[in-house]
Amino acid sequence: MITSRHNEKVRLVRELSDSARARRETGLFPAEGIRLVREIPRDQIESVFVQESKEAAAAPDLTVPYELVSDDAFTAMSDTKNPQGVLALVRRNVIKPEELAGRENAVLMILEHLQDPGNLGTIIRCAEGAGITGIICSADTVDVTNPKVVRSTMGSIFRVPVSVAEDSFTDVLSMLHRHDFRLFAAHLAGTCDYDEVSYPSRTGILIGNEANGLTAETAQAADQLVRIPMEGRVESLNAAVAASVFMYEIYRQKRAAARTGNRQSE
Amino acid sequence: MITSRHNEKVRLVRELSDSARARRETGLFPAEGIRLVREIPRDQIESVFVQESKEAAAAPDLTVPYELVSDDAFTAMSDTKNPQGVLALVRRNVIKPEELAGRENAVLMILEHLQDPGNLGTIIRCAEGAGITGIICSADTVDVTNPKVVRSTMGSIFRVPVSVAEDSFTDVLSMLHRHDFRLFAAHLAGTCDYDEVSYPSRTGILIGNEANGLTAETAQAADQLVRIPMEGRVESLNAAVAASVFMYEIYRQKRAAARTGNRQSE
Repeated sequence: MITSRHNEKVRLVRELSDSARARRETGLFPAEGIRLVREIPRDQIESVFVQESKEAAAAPDLTVPYELVSDDAFTAMSDTKNPQGVLALVRRNVIKPEELAGRENAVLMILEHLQDPGNLGTIIRCAEGAGITGIICSADTVDVTNPKVVRSTMGSIFRVPVSVAEDSFTDVLSMLHRHDFRLFAAHLAGTCDYDEVSYPSRTGILIGNEANGLTAETAQAADQLVRIPMEGRVESLNAAVAASVFMYEIYRQKRAAARTGNRQSE
Repeated sequence: MITSRHNEKVRLVRELSDSARARRETGLFPAEGIRLVREIPRDQIESVFVQESKEAAAAPDLTVPYELVSDDAFTAMSDTKNPQGVLALVRRNVIKPEELAGRENAVLMILEHLQDPGNLGTIIRCAEGAGITGIICSADTVDVTNPKVVRSTMGSIFRVPVSVAEDSFTDVLSMLHRHDFRLFAAHLAGTCDYDEVSYPSRTGILIGNEANGLTAETAQAADQLVRIPMEGRVESLNAAVAASVFMYEIYRQKRAAARTGNRQSE
């Protein structure tokens, strides 16, 4: 049993919670909570820690070996105020933008400079629900293994492929064009509404930063600027809401086409 | 100029930031940030405070009288880490559920026990965008004048009427039925999809708590349980996303009907 706050594993987990750089260098990230830990694919689990006083409650739900940690040391490990007593280190699954682009009938959400971890996590969760193929993040988007992102995905992070554009974002957009993607930019200057577009089978939706939207360069690389109509004096929607409105409209069209058997892309 | 952290106005603002009870008892709540303060209707402004060192930057944007506050005292007032230097006390606009129910062609979002301030704020912001008439919150929903709610509405809180069901929530639902509302519950056990429903002109959408959804009692009071279809292993969507998907579907139908001039409810 780990009993000291200064134990090297305790310190590693803390470091991984606090530092995107440490997560990148080790390829590991922490995931906390009984439900979340149960959803980690077996081959991505590096190690699991269980808090001593919560073992009786937590252990029956775990099907993997774990290491016991004293209450004091677990509190030092944990990123939450009221830990459930289960924490895992997860091996990150690295997937390249090219790989996502190569998938059949891919619909991709492409995020530029998103900064709020809750927004990114919420988008990943909604993407799974709406049957989106995957997500590509610009290099300056909040780290997808950030503990707040991981928590707010509610487990979808282990099922939705998320790729980071390590090279220039523009290069990634060009690569998508070479793969015959049509790129739609969510943009206030859009000339048509998001629900007037017929989304083809290779679709990319570009969503920009919470405060500033898409950069001019990225908007220019899009094939079409599309807007979500808004009443009142609203200048923009929350980024996760905007992304979700797009995702569910694409999913609505896909389901409607499946019902009538007329899907354009088939 | 206010120079002391112990000044009674400084203490009042702090108390109003921290305590829902103080806000309820005084009918006042703080709103912070240049943009937000500019959007407060003139007749709801109780007082405005400007931080001494930021007066030059902030004052030109203000069209109302304000009181100067030293940097030290302003930091004590402020709820944010990097204050913009402008804070207002706002008089709350109280509106009864009956009043909302009486509006013509009303579409209402009805929220039961929502707990996350960011979710409530995001719903209010999206509601303005989607042209929703108003929002009714159960008494156990997070206080709509909570600083985090106010901030995440991005100003929509001053334009979207939000009513709190002080009596029993069931009574409010009965009242809506008496006003000929049709109530749709967002529910995992829904028998039809949210986009298969034709929403009438007097529509209420019931959205439940983040972790537990709607109570059985509330779901039973609905005329119809409606689900948002989900792929993968997603068990539910984020509450603000679910509410937004409903709101934008209703708005989509309304706009489509306006285009064809066949709106059912007219």
